[in-house]
Amino acid sequence: MDKKVLNKMLRPKSVAVVGASATPGKIGYSVISNLLKDGYKGKIYPINPKESEILGVKCYAELKDVPGEIDSAVMCVPAKAMVEMTEECGKKGVKGLIVITSGFSEIGRKDLEDEIVNIAKRYGMRILGPNIVGSLSNSDKFNGSFCPSLPLPGKASLVSQSGALLIALAMATWTRKVGFDKLISIGNMADVDFADLIEWFNDDEDTSCVSLYIEGLKNGRRFIDAAKNSKKPIIALKSGVSAHGAAAAASHTGSLAGAAKVYGSAFKQACVIQASDLDNLFDRTLGLSSQPPMKGDNLLVLTNGGGVGVLATDAAERYGIPLKFAPEDVQAEMKKHMPEFGSAKNPVDMTGMAGNEWYYETVKYAISNKWTDGLVILYCETSITNPHEIAESIKRAIDDSGVKNKPVTVSFVGGDRSNEAIAWLNEHGIPAFFAPDVAVNVIAALREYAILQEQKNNIHVKPNEKAMKKSMEIIEAARKDGRTALTEIEAKAIFEAYGMPTTKIALAKTEEEAIAAAKKIGYPIVMKIVSPDILHKSDAGGVKVNIKDEAAAREAFNTIMKNAKAYKADANIHGIAVQEMAPWGTEVILGSINDPTFGPTLMFGLGGIFVEVLKDVTFRVSPVSSVEAMDMINEIKGAKILAGARGEAPRDRKALANAIVNYSSMILDLKDEIAESDANPFLVYAEGEGLKVADARIILKKK
Amino acid sequence: MDKKVLNKMLRPKSVAVVGASATPGKIGYSVISNLLKDGYKGKIYPINPKESEILGVKCYAELKDVPGEIDSAVMCVPAKAMVEMTEECGKKGVKGLIVITSGFSEIGRKDLEDEIVNIAKRYGMRILGPNIVGSLSNSDKFNGSFCPSLPLPGKASLVSQSGALLIALAMATWTRKVGFDKLISIGNMADVDFADLIEWFNDDEDTSCVSLYIEGLKNGRRFIDAAKNSKKPIIALKSGVSAHGAAAAASHTGSLAGAAKVYGSAFKQACVIQASDLDNLFDRTLGLSSQPPMKGDNLLVLTNGGGVGVLATDAAERYGIPLKFAPEDVQAEMKKHMPEFGSAKNPVDMTGMAGNEWYYETVKYAISNKWTDGLVILYCETSITNPHEIAESIKRAIDDSGVKNKPVTVSFVGGDRSNEAIAWLNEHGIPAFFAPDVAVNVIAALREYAILQEQKNNIHVKPNEKAMKKSMEIIEAARKDGRTALTEIEAKAIFEAYGMPTTKIALAKTEEEAIAAAKKIGYPIVMKIVSPDILHKSDAGGVKVNIKDEAAAREAFNTIMKNAKAYKADANIHGIAVQEMAPWGTEVILGSINDPTFGPTLMFGLGGIFVEVLKDVTFRVSPVSSVEAMDMINEIKGAKILAGARGEAPRDRKALANAIVNYSSMILDLKDEIAESDANPFLVYAEGEGLKVADARIILKKK
Repeated sequence: MDKKVLNKMLRPKSVAVVGASATPGKIGYSVISNLLKDGYKGKIYPINPKESEILGVKCYAELKDVPGEIDSAVMCVPAKAMVEMTEECGKKGVKGLIVITSGFSEIGRKDLEDEIVNIAKRYGMRILGPNIVGSLSNSDKFNGSFCPSLPLPGKASLVSQSGALLIALAMATWTRKVGFDKLISIGNMADVDFADLIEWFNDDEDTSCVSLYIEGLKNGRRFIDAAKNSKKPIIALKSGVSAHGAAAAASHTGSLAGAAKVYGSAFKQACVIQASDLDNLFDRTLGLSSQPPMKGDNLLVLTNGGGVGVLATDAAERYGIPLKFAPEDVQAEMKKHMPEFGSAKNPVDMTGMAGNEWYYETVKYAISNKWTDGLVILYCETSITNPHEIAESIKRAIDDSGVKNKPVTVSFVGGDRSNEAIAWLNEHGIPAFFAPDVAVNVIAALREYAILQEQKNNIHVKPNEKAMKKSMEIIEAARKDGRTALTEIEAKAIFEAYGMPTTKIALAKTEEEAIAAAKKIGYPIVMKIVSPDILHKSDAGGVKVNIKDEAAAREAFNTIMKNAKAYKADANIHGIAVQEMAPWGTEVILGSINDPTFGPTLMFGLGGIFVEVLKDVTFRVSPVSSVEAMDMINEIKGAKILAGARGEAPRDRKALANAIVNYSSMILDLKDEIAESDANPFLVYAEGEGLKVADARIILKKK
Repeated sequence: MDKKVLNKMLRPKSVAVVGASATPGKIGYSVISNLLKDGYKGKIYPINPKESEILGVKCYAELKDVPGEIDSAVMCVPAKAMVEMTEECGKKGVKGLIVITSGFSEIGRKDLEDEIVNIAKRYGMRILGPNIVGSLSNSDKFNGSFCPSLPLPGKASLVSQSGALLIALAMATWTRKVGFDKLISIGNMADVDFADLIEWFNDDEDTSCVSLYIEGLKNGRRFIDAAKNSKKPIIALKSGVSAHGAAAAASHTGSLAGAAKVYGSAFKQACVIQASDLDNLFDRTLGLSSQPPMKGDNLLVLTNGGGVGVLATDAAERYGIPLKFAPEDVQAEMKKHMPEFGSAKNPVDMTGMAGNEWYYETVKYAISNKWTDGLVILYCETSITNPHEIAESIKRAIDDSGVKNKPVTVSFVGGDRSNEAIAWLNEHGIPAFFAPDVAVNVIAALREYAILQEQKNNIHVKPNEKAMKKSMEIIEAARKDGRTALTEIEAKAIFEAYGMPTTKIALAKTEEEAIAAAKKIGYPIVMKIVSPDILHKSDAGGVKVNIKDEAAAREAFNTIMKNAKAYKADANIHGIAVQEMAPWGTEVILGSINDPTFGPTLMFGLGGIFVEVLKDVTFRVSPVSSVEAMDMINEIKGAKILAGARGEAPRDRKALANAIVNYSSMILDLKDEIAESDANPFLVYAEGEGLKVADARIILKKK
């Protein structure tokens, strides 16, 4: 139902231009002019009470005067007229509004934006924008925008949060020969957001790959869900990743930019491929829109020049798909089409003597053999070969091989003739570039896409009802107390409820209670003051460790109490925590934030210098699958420590992955309650020996 | 003198083509044809006993028949004829040989290569190659190669170790509109190497920037010296930086590729800017050949679009020149040429309303004001502006400002009209690109160049005669012993001689000697077995620490001796080392290798997990200045540890820098003796408290 509405909005059979103008230079004129110029075949209804016709098209004074149905309305009226006009659109039965008009949340008028969204909702209309350039579709010859022309036709579609960039990129598609079917300016995202469009593109036959220019998402979780379920590859250029840039992005679109690291993790979880800059967005879009994912790690590089071969080899390592030597039989076959001094290893160097036939035979064999998962073909222009003929040989070899499930990218280093061959290859669906580095970067994106699809977390985590109930009791009790910081004992009880082992701990109000608790827990023990008024327990002389027997425990209890009172006479003392003294283990940290964009988000890292000096941490948006948990464990720089570096036995990574999954459930279940939390240090023991939370902290959301 | 020879070789007034051919397709034909086609004005002497003329040029049977002088000879004869022909060239008084001929060290015939080099030396001739494409010079219209055409004229010059790549790049200069004056194929570097050409370019008025494509250097130290003294910026694309790639490069050119990290450090010391790939080589060459270095960190970004502004901001952080807000007065001035909703911060966003005049006024002010050190100008194509006019406004503003000592780079995002404007700007000396990211990358290279020039190490280290003498005595004694591994005591004595404090240590052969040594050193002490037959001392029960008094020392001596004999009955035991037990300090490692390309090279890193797990180490080719030593200390990931992380006092970095300088002198003085060495752990204490080598190792070169 909703998709049909978007369909009518973005691929309309009839369009009204509300605020159409007969004055060249006005946006309301440009839209009419663009619709006509670019050959839109649907019905066009300019709305303007002062004109009878614009550019030869009959003009209507009001929407209700339009005789037929209106699928989509491009709004070019001033912001102050938008409330009335939205109401009129609703009454007329318009399906979707493409709101070019600016002057809403981007200048602080969120109220006005909400008002038109509410009106639209009442009538079942959807709103694109406001504050946009418009929407363009090549397959409908629909240029419902003030962008001067439709893009070069192609199989990718682009959604851009920056209007200015969308216009510039539309023009660049022609120069750079990267085609697009739809260009959609998404602006303030008052209603339709990235997730809506990603879902809509699933059924759009003319789109094979979705490119996004993102400044900031509003609902990160919906984005992840939509992207994860996308049938088409998605590639995103996220701007505002630097501290200074994030500030600029925030002022630019009024949306809150999340931390770059959280975005990076979220994109990974959403199976979204990232682009590093505009060039890379074009390059990777070209690859993802025309080539299949690369299903394994075996990349074969063919070349006629050693130099470009080495550059491609370096790039393969840089982009995470290092080359391996092909098996002997594959090498033997390829030896047939090269001189004695060629190399059948990887890169396969056919030497400068390689002509059309060697390229044809080698490419055909290279893509057909079982070992190869993907192919990068390099050509260094020589005076004895014709780049166009080499390009044709490559295309013919791929076609004749009949192989359609392995990706190929190409680099032709040379002058005008090579450039022409690159354009020809691109037109024929084989992504080709100047630099070998770029050809490798693009096939790396196709490999990454396959890996992300394999690792995709499709878990639907059920709330842990029992743990939630217990946690909520603790949380509510603390809230009744007027606290948002839970005590260590409370936090540990919640961690325990979610299946994370913690060091045993008990609150003792009296010396006798302490002795009883110590007996239960077993010596040696640790004792710590518990008081909301004493945060720095050690400074106050409020901590004693390695207490070995009852006599020492009695002495410690009294000393800590005395110290605490000396430190702060009027401190509210809950008692003394009697705690198991955990044996030494590798210190890790699990923590959580409630990210403004993505909600409950987990952090993992090694303790000590790794987190404090090296900031060696990784994030995932909750829920996290056990595969993702293991991925987190393996992707930190200090991963080797857990694998058992420096003669240590490997740590219990299975138990750690399990704890990560449980932690993720906890922060998801309690997302309306927990603002921040951490288990630090979380001690991880040798394989099979599990792990234990030694200290815990939970901060509640303010309510 | 030597430069004059190179001048005659590379910019000849007369050239012989030895092995000239009348058969199209032959290299000896292509060279004659290229010289004629590209308009060479000097004298051409084809040498071929079988022809009377080639392409209308009189042919000579032998070199001695040529009537006039010959500056340069392009050699196209087969390898087997090269010895005789080189001799003939020498007799004729030819100055330089451009040896296209292949079949030398690249196929294992180093002997043949040496032979022709020796003949050339006898006659005072220089040799370029062999195994090259040739040499090209636009300003001389000299195409002494089989590359089909001269490059697009420009101010940069390129030296390439790959011939195939040189040909492809020559053609690409026309397509990509990056001009070059000279293209020199350097091949096997039997004689003329990168260093020779860098020195020669110093006096070449037509070259403002030198670009290098390097697969492997032969004499790294000479390269560093030449590059450091270059008057012109040098940019290098080093291929074979990956493990797999290094193997490919080695097989490709027969030169030994050094480790990527050592190359990276050596380039830094040589003030050489690195390019990451072919695109980047062109882009950075364009910048370095036309713009001055950026003398400070204040980069200002001007834009008409928020989106591209944010992308540039991200890139600035990525490339190490993060944006800062401009001062209030600068902002106030720029506020004059933008609408209310523009932003005068950094990026300066003039908004999509910015036309020619705003660009002119803002650029002129931005480059003139004192705060700005460099300027990136962005333009996002709009339908209301003309890219060419914007480009002209930018050029006029820079010219009218009269400012010539601040770099400017430009990005125009858009279609054909923007592309044309980019080409126009490049023709007029202002480097312009499509992606904002690239404009920032290029200005970052100009900033890096300025920093490297400032930090340049111009030290000329005198040998430490006294330390050398002492060290040589120890080394010679060990060699007499038939050893290449020095004992800890010997190594520490050398370290001490070079001013690096070590823990006190003495060799005791008897219990009484041990007690006497302990008394001298002072308790507590450490005792260790000293035996060339017991490498794993701890495993053999050969180490005792924290020995507090004489009784314990006696017991330890006897226990260690007993353990050692039990471990290996026939072990040659030198005695027991009695050693000061150093107080705890931050563990660092200083070490050295004798790099095959760069010679004595220093390594520095933090000990423990930093070196073992994170491989957090950095290199410098010796000698190292104190500025460079401090740079090493600050560039490792764990730098914060030494600055005093986690509540610790800052470590004595001044003493550490001093130790690095001394270490660097030691390995340089003893470069013919020391193969490898390390001080590990080297304990660094709090500021003012110095440092101490706790364990030392020196391995001698085999002789």
